Amino acid sequence: MVVTTQHKQFPSLELESGIVLAPVDVAYETYGTLNESKSNAILIVHAFSGDAHAGGVDAEGHKGWWDNMIGPGKGFDTSKYFVICSNVLGGCKGSTGPSSINPATGQPYAMSFPVITIGDMVRLQKLLIDSFGITRLLSIAGGSMGGMQVLEWAVRYPESVASAIPIASTARHSAQQIAFNEVARQAIMADPDWCNGNYYNSKPPGRGLAVARMVGHITYMSDESMRQKFGRRLREDNGIFEVESYLRYRGSQFVDRFDANSYLYITKAMDVFDLANGAQSLVPVLAKSRTRYLIISFTSDWLYPSYQSLEIVSALRRRNQDVAYIELTSNYGHDAFLVEVDEQADLIRGFLSRTMKENEKR
Amino acid sequence: MVVTTQHKQFPSLELESGIVLAPVDVAYETYGTLNESKSNAILIVHAFSGDAHAGGVDAEGHKGWWDNMIGPGKGFDTSKYFVICSNVLGGCKGSTGPSSINPATGQPYAMSFPVITIGDMVRLQKLLIDSFGITRLLSIAGGSMGGMQVLEWAVRYPESVASAIPIASTARHSAQQIAFNEVARQAIMADPDWCNGNYYNSKPPGRGLAVARMVGHITYMSDESMRQKFGRRLREDNGIFEVESYLRYRGSQFVDRFDANSYLYITKAMDVFDLANGAQSLVPVLAKSRTRYLIISFTSDWLYPSYQSLEIVSALRRRNQDVAYIELTSNYGHDAFLVEVDEQADLIRGFLSRTMKENEKR
Repeated sequence: MVVTTQHKQFPSLELESGIVLAPVDVAYETYGTLNESKSNAILIVHAFSGDAHAGGVDAEGHKGWWDNMIGPGKGFDTSKYFVICSNVLGGCKGSTGPSSINPATGQPYAMSFPVITIGDMVRLQKLLIDSFGITRLLSIAGGSMGGMQVLEWAVRYPESVASAIPIASTARHSAQQIAFNEVARQAIMADPDWCNGNYYNSKPPGRGLAVARMVGHITYMSDESMRQKFGRRLREDNGIFEVESYLRYRGSQFVDRFDANSYLYITKAMDVFDLANGAQSLVPVLAKSRTRYLIISFTSDWLYPSYQSLEIVSALRRRNQDVAYIELTSNYGHDAFLVEVDEQADLIRGFLSRTMKENEKR
Repeated sequence: MVVTTQHKQFPSLELESGIVLAPVDVAYETYGTLNESKSNAILIVHAFSGDAHAGGVDAEGHKGWWDNMIGPGKGFDTSKYFVICSNVLGGCKGSTGPSSINPATGQPYAMSFPVITIGDMVRLQKLLIDSFGITRLLSIAGGSMGGMQVLEWAVRYPESVASAIPIASTARHSAQQIAFNEVARQAIMADPDWCNGNYYNSKPPGRGLAVARMVGHITYMSDESMRQKFGRRLREDNGIFEVESYLRYRGSQFVDRFDANSYLYITKAMDVFDLANGAQSLVPVLAKSRTRYLIISFTSDWLYPSYQSLEIVSALRRRNQDVAYIELTSNYGHDAFLVEVDEQADLIRGFLSRTMKENEKR
């Protein structure tokens, strides 16, 4: 069965800054069937460069980015659950973002797009969930920036989230994580084709965006996974290292599928995100949530290291909140949440099943 | 006493590729006094962006990049030893490199500069050492790319090196190390001002070079040292994160002191360097050396992780060669070899003193 991305428009969305976006579009996909009591809905939230196409196969034959986790019998079992995934606010895959037309001008917003936050992404998702008449999500799950949205949901809408699964994520970026994003942003803005963001009627800043993506790819892999995948092998055709060739290819490929201004806005939203809103301790803010947590990290993930997940776990345990934590062994680095399926799926399957049962008792 | 960088010109240098550079200049500094038997000479070899000004203070009041290690009573004790440091071939601080004038054309070499290797850098250093009438170095020491030159010296000129001190280095780059260098190169070449390297009569590719340097700085620090130095603190004047401000400043500052084409040539020389020349094992190549080794790495150095030093140590031990290895505890990441002075100086002081005594017995 072919999956098609769907679209909804809401008349307006008030952002955390107080600015009102009107109208606002959201692109989303659903898998499985919403039950009568609307108690089996799971929201999947995507990472930085993801989109609404999380599961199944689209008309062009492309598998969803988490298709190995979403489907009948899979980690998110669509024979039991109704799974929703939407493109984030600020993105470039159907939800309103800097490349969208500003109705006030008839031109793309570009850099006149308002500053957005992880909280704003969640507000838009809440509109979408409300539009289905779902008052309480069985679960919300996502890796990387998805995990930030999961945490934000749990503390902002405590009554609307029965369980939360933040994977390979953090409650706030470290200086190093901000630094990698800043290099990427500088690479984009250094490209003269960026033109202060006004490139929609001409050539996009492809060279800068490609460099930004190359930096990203290094941080998504581990030293060990790069050794296994490339080592010091040279390409026979041009004599360059395979790792160079791979990065160049992935960089140039990205230019065709991602908007440079979205890169700037979304990475900034990630960097500014701080669940504790400047406080040192995560205990008080996490105490607002009424959610069961399953927190997962991966041994070789040096971009979102396990200590960041453990900081969340410790804060939850301080107030005796319901949290299960596991660090999975993997060589894949940060990419592990997308590729290390087996153990992850087992954990999630069990966690969801128990959550469903406890929900029924309520 | 003010230190002045000196210059020598040699009529020619044959490169590993067979190409002959003629003439070839080398910029260097010396500290301390060469003894009558010329047995107290130590060659210091610099890292990627270093120069000949390793010790003392120059006419503008700038301290050398390893001044905390070089001087009377310091790790490299200039009251006992004669210390030499030269700018590498391919550099932009007085030794022949892409920004030098090609005598055949009267124009800067730019990208017509021949491909150079770590071995070629060492060949030029050998000419310099020979010009002093020094037949055997008491020691050769350097961190990062300096360590690669140390290793190359030890196996190429085994009779000319009594001891070798490679610090925070490797016998060959991993895929991840190559990847970071490749991103930097792509950032430079993506800058339209690069003009295929022909920018010497116009504007240098400053934006690309700044992005390249920003990537570098992240890899030179550790997650922990960035947390301690910047955390998530914001600058009061412009509201950006301190880490962003720091990287932008260091990036733009670098443009004034480094040549973009040198960046391309030198990083490529590092990436291509393989002490074992494609062989899996380092044992046979290291067996060529007749050198005492002191090998140092740092716990938080994730760019040149300790396992790379240990690979060299293991290979030396397999043939019962004389090697001392220590992993020093530091939060400073790869920068540690420049800033963690105390323990490093003690280790080197003792190692040099013992080498001097054993040398006298010869």
